Amino acid sequence: HGPLTLIAGPCQMETRQHAFDMAGALKDITSRLGIGFVYKSSFDKANRTSLSGKRGMGLDAALPVFADIKKEFGVPVLTDIHNEEQCPIVAEVCDILQIPAFLCRQTDLLVAAAKTGAIINVKKGQFLAPWDMKNVVNKITESGNLDVLVTERGASFGYNTLVSDMRSLPVLAETGAPVIFDATHSVQQPGGLGGASGGQRQFVPTLARAAVAVGVAGVFVETHQDPDNAPSDGPNMLPLDAMEAFLGTLMEIDAIAKKAAA
Amino acid sequence: HGPLTLIAGPCQMETRQHAFDMAGALKDITSRLGIGFVYKSSFDKANRTSLSGKRGMGLDAALPVFADIKKEFGVPVLTDIHNEEQCPIVAEVCDILQIPAFLCRQTDLLVAAAKTGAIINVKKGQFLAPWDMKNVVNKITESGNLDVLVTERGASFGYNTLVSDMRSLPVLAETGAPVIFDATHSVQQPGGLGGASGGQRQFVPTLARAAVAVGVAGVFVETHQDPDNAPSDGPNMLPLDAMEAFLGTLMEIDAIAKKAAA
Amino acid sequence: HGPLTLIAGPCQMETRQHAFDMAGALKDITSRLGIGFVYKSSFDKANRTSLSGKRGMGLDAALPVFADIKKEFGVPVLTDIHNEEQCPIVAEVCDILQIPAFLCRQTDLLVAAAKTGAIINVKKGQFLAPWDMKNVVNKITESGNLDVLVTERGASFGYNTLVSDMRSLPVLAETGAPVIFDATHSVQQPGGLGGASGGQRQFVPTLARAAVAVGVAGVFVETHQDPDNAPSDGPNMLPLDAMEAFLGTLMEIDAIAKKAAA
Amino acid sequence: HGPLTLIAGPCQMETRQHAFDMAGALKDITSRLGIGFVYKSSFDKANRTSLSGKRGMGLDAALPVFADIKKEFGVPVLTDIHNEEQCPIVAEVCDILQIPAFLCRQTDLLVAAAKTGAIINVKKGQFLAPWDMKNVVNKITESGNLDVLVTERGASFGYNTLVSDMRSLPVLAETGAPVIFDATHSVQQPGGLGGASGGQRQFVPTLARAAVAVGVAGVFVETHQDPDNAPSDGPNMLPLDAMEAFLGTLMEIDAIAKKAAA
Repeated sequence: HGPLTLIAGPCQMETRQHAFDMAGALKDITSRLGIGFVYKSSFDKANRTSLSGKRGMGLDAALPVFADIKKEFGVPVLTDIHNEEQCPIVAEVCDILQIPAFLCRQTDLLVAAAKTGAIINVKKGQFLAPWDMKNVVNKITESGNLDVLVTERGASFGYNTLVSDMRSLPVLAETGAPVIFDATHSVQQPGGLGGASGGQRQFVPTLARAAVAVGVAGVFVETHQDPDNAPSDGPNMLPLDAMEAFLGTLMEIDAIAKKAAA
Repeated sequence: HGPLTLIAGPCQMETRQHAFDMAGALKDITSRLGIGFVYKSSFDKANRTSLSGKRGMGLDAALPVFADIKKEFGVPVLTDIHNEEQCPIVAEVCDILQIPAFLCRQTDLLVAAAKTGAIINVKKGQFLAPWDMKNVVNKITESGNLDVLVTERGASFGYNTLVSDMRSLPVLAETGAPVIFDATHSVQQPGGLGGASGGQRQFVPTLARAAVAVGVAGVFVETHQDPDNAPSDGPNMLPLDAMEAFLGTLMEIDAIAKKAAA
Repeated sequence: HGPLTLIAGPCQMETRQHAFDMAGALKDITSRLGIGFVYKSSFDKANRTSLSGKRGMGLDAALPVFADIKKEFGVPVLTDIHNEEQCPIVAEVCDILQIPAFLCRQTDLLVAAAKTGAIINVKKGQFLAPWDMKNVVNKITESGNLDVLVTERGASFGYNTLVSDMRSLPVLAETGAPVIFDATHSVQQPGGLGGASGGQRQFVPTLARAAVAVGVAGVFVETHQDPDNAPSDGPNMLPLDAMEAFLGTLMEIDAIAKKAAA
Repeated sequence: HGPLTLIAGPCQMETRQHAFDMAGALKDITSRLGIGFVYKSSFDKANRTSLSGKRGMGLDAALPVFADIKKEFGVPVLTDIHNEEQCPIVAEVCDILQIPAFLCRQTDLLVAAAKTGAIINVKKGQFLAPWDMKNVVNKITESGNLDVLVTERGASFGYNTLVSDMRSLPVLAETGAPVIFDATHSVQQPGGLGGASGGQRQFVPTLARAAVAVGVAGVFVETHQDPDNAPSDGPNMLPLDAMEAFLGTLMEIDAIAKKAAA
């Protein structure tokens, strides 16, 4: 039950400079607060609502940037993968491979990711009960990889809405894997803008505070210096300049939650 | 943004002695912790799953007990009412009249309760969106009573299950009424035992901690010295001897949440 | 497994003349189609979204109109009741007492209605699993009244939305009570208009056809000569002049469904 | 608005002989009833609940069987694909490529399938609102393929349960694509058996009749001569010997539904 870790970064990698700026700023904030930090960004948004949604800079361009961020800032990096071929390539650079929620039941992808030996962060599908994630974790551990994280990111609740069931967190913990709460995608409104997904940025602190009070290993928060002009997930990213106060409160709650659990 | 208040007691009033024992024990605990305390108990369970469910001691027997508990322990008392006739009678003794969730849209009941001048605690229906509680609150305030509390107690989520949407708490706060989180009924499994409702007592602290971290005026928790043998709501009541540690953690989280909101 | 019965009428009784006009028109249509007909109207809308919602003409004014409609058209009449006191009074005139969905767990109301000896039509709560209606039916039959109908009217599905689970119909049939499908309230969007409930009139035929194909004893459809100007439930009432074609199709589907079940 | 088409077959291809037996039996039944027939089977079950679930005979073994079934019985064949590489290979033999529900938002898969020129049947994700399928259809048509079918197969409803919203069918029809109702997966209970998904076979006729009464282009029904011993989806497959009576009723309802829509 160590203190909270933060998985954060902009939703998608935009440019080398932007990635460095964001990683540097987040490294500074987390160092001041004594919170562990993993840099997250996507090289490809593979399931945009429509074809015209911006997809990201691509694998070839992104991997050297991830490598340089690791070297420059001494932080682990995480990115999401979408098919089996990407797994070994990404694992050469990235510390953590993330399985997207929609793909959490795709056996071949889970096995290919597991076999790289990287840490695997699996997001719980919006369509999955928390107790069913044990089957997902088993697909990875039975493939020989015991370094698994599981991430809660909301459950389908009617149409165009997710709900975060806080009971999910202790249920996920029963898998034995550290539990991450994704406060960014939990406030997503899937398809809520017609040709794009909406979001409720104002509820990111609400849900993150709730999850940390229940007890989690880490929180996942996408952030951007100018969310309203970000190429994806803008409506649910937190502004970079709100991060420090937000994280400070989480660290205080985390200390109490972990003391109560001890 | 004062510190947390606790609304607590056994689900139903069993005997005068039992009511005094519970009220005394809870008064002791809350005094030690410096947490405000309202004693809650029901004189009638008007919507049991089946006719054979035990309904409680009734209004005539319960009111003198409520009156004596107020006098003996100097605490406000709360009970739920089920029809218009009960409102003025109960309001002569009880400080807070509670509108059950199933009845939160019954105009005549809301108006009759409002007109007593007592504080009204309305539970949000399992079928109601949090933003629709403004209409419910308005029915009370437009009847001339501004002393309203609103209580979150879970939303229908598939069959026989409730989910607690923590976003509901700031949405309810927009009504202007203090927001209470009912951690006992939020873990109810309606009809889950066939002829009775089930519950998941183990998640009461989970949800209460989450809600307090988000920020609420109070928590509502039913408790019993022997929940497994209680006449109603046993599966979701917290054992009395677990209350002090549970509440201590909530008070620590509450202090951080209220500091962050200040 | 007799042919389909129709329970229909305007949502609320507006005037004596309006009630007669509607009853007469519906009697004509159903006679031409050979479909059983029960006239429905409410004397009071007891759970409007806001205080300013129009509530209806009241019990004293409505009962003589119901009595005269029975005499004039030779049809049974149905209305909904909201408290115990109304039960014996309404039962002197009306053939069927209807328990509103929000009140389907209120024991005293169910027992008082049962004891009148009238036929009882209980609507399934939006918050209730279909298999839990057996407990509701038992409260009535154990009070000595075996004439019970159960009505499906949608289940809570996220916020401000209902969904009609067609599996509910055979599950409800296991209670032994004839099953009615309420196509009007199943397309309601509770609270969907802010200060009033919205509705999706265009899906009334969709859901009614589905339910009849599954197999039901009757359908419940509110109708009005000018729904957009009706005092309540306008968004989900069917225009009177659409009823005959709509019911004709239902009767054809019903014949096949009942033949397949025989 | 032509008459109903049936997409049917065993969940997974077991052996060449079994595939021929099933295709032949279904061809006989559909010929007698005058119902269009597409043979469906999976060569790989790529998202089994656990690693130990049987996955099927594989692409290389299955394609020649599909080719021979087409030749022998003169029927189009449909199978589901799971990654981009499979698309052109499968399209050389199969008439219809099916996109699994979990993968309906994966842009690269949709585009790769579209570019084969085969007919594409996309299943609506359990996490998707019906109106959001227009974005999915657009990804295919904007890739130059106008031959798209959309399939309703239930929406997440709480945990381990799906609900079939019949309003979805006319909403999906607004995409312009023919709408199929998958009666087999709509009664699935995802993860409901712990290490496997459960199902409610008894509700397949319930939901299929409802959908056909609303109006669909086709129904999708998995069937097996011995469902209880099938390697996958046994709990929700219909026994082969129940198919003819079941389909006969659907055809009668379909005739009425299409007449009413004309």
